[in-house]
Amino acid sequence: MAGPRTRHAHATETRELILTTAERLFAEHGVAAVSNRQISEAAGQANNFAVGYHFGTKTDLVAAIVRRHAPEIERRRLDLLKAIQRSETLRDWLGCLVLPSTEHLASLGNPSWYARFIAQATTDPALRQIVIDETSASPSMRGVSEGLMRLMPVLPADVIAERADMSRHLIVHVCAERERALQEGTTTPRATWEGAAVGLIDALAGLWQAPFTPTR
Amino acid sequence: MAGPRTRHAHATETRELILTTAERLFAEHGVAAVSNRQISEAAGQANNFAVGYHFGTKTDLVAAIVRRHAPEIERRRLDLLKAIQRSETLRDWLGCLVLPSTEHLASLGNPSWYARFIAQATTDPALRQIVIDETSASPSMRGVSEGLMRLMPVLPADVIAERADMSRHLIVHVCAERERALQEGTTTPRATWEGAAVGLIDALAGLWQAPFTPTR
Repeated sequence: MAGPRTRHAHATETRELILTTAERLFAEHGVAAVSNRQISEAAGQANNFAVGYHFGTKTDLVAAIVRRHAPEIERRRLDLLKAIQRSETLRDWLGCLVLPSTEHLASLGNPSWYARFIAQATTDPALRQIVIDETSASPSMRGVSEGLMRLMPVLPADVIAERADMSRHLIVHVCAERERALQEGTTTPRATWEGAAVGLIDALAGLWQAPFTPTR
Repeated sequence: MAGPRTRHAHATETRELILTTAERLFAEHGVAAVSNRQISEAAGQANNFAVGYHFGTKTDLVAAIVRRHAPEIERRRLDLLKAIQRSETLRDWLGCLVLPSTEHLASLGNPSWYARFIAQATTDPALRQIVIDETSASPSMRGVSEGLMRLMPVLPADVIAERADMSRHLIVHVCAERERALQEGTTTPRATWEGAAVGLIDALAGLWQAPFTPTR
């Protein structure tokens, strides 16, 4: 008979299997198009309610997938912030925005699913707030925001907010389209994730340094 | 008894009502989260299969919503292209990218739904190709691409493709978030759609003029 420790290990394994399966199915078919039942089946669970039992609602499952990746991305960003100290170079700060995601995705190998999952979740009216809550308010993101504001004293707060939103859109959706192209074997503007990060940092450097036109 | 002309007018009216309802429900809840049956009901159709009868599958319905807006956006872009002729000014060409969407959205009034609908459809694995087919290959978009390539002879084709993709992401997702904020009454970086267009053109001007770093 399985002791409590073995049962616990088995439950952890099942949870991991469900998370991996859900992330792939969400990326392939869309978050709303996949039911908890389909995830349970694809994860080889005899019980069709396995997802509900282990995670609760679909919203809880989405939050669990985000929380599975967020700490690793946060750790990378905190390391980068520490390495650049109080750098005066814009590209250093933009690297803190871009590299934690691109390096994490590179580490997952091809195919990965997380970039497409995040792109869909941040665009979905029912799910976007979860992703924002789990990621944008992190200590490392606050550090990057403060750094950018210090480096760009000429920009009004509204324009800082506007360009921060734009930076987020660019990183999320460039990564998602690249991930899809890699899996499908179609051409990408850059050969590697490292190259994609360079392209993003080039573009963001132009975007942040662009003169701004005030409007009412 | 209704003659064929009246029946035809009635069918056109029903189709319009279904399209308006579907666009709103898709924007509010996500494309995949809304069933054809829910759309039929919300559009006040006694027959739950009204969407299927008038449009076919959900994919057909999504294409019909895109085709309802695309000609107006295309017309605006062709007018702009005609007005700037072969301008040597980057902002003129970026205006051809940005303004047809922002002016169309402004003309729809608040609340509008199309920006969020498009953002979701272009991010959905099952729907993105439809939107791309219905919009990106239009004569006006080819005109803008040619203009940007002529103006940016120093950029390699890969970087042109990379920045064109980035421009599309920025316009689609900035418009969608602004549309949502307007409906919810939350703050936006710019007070008007005209201001949002100026912010986008500023940012894109920086993005396109940014020096590029070649990578392997």
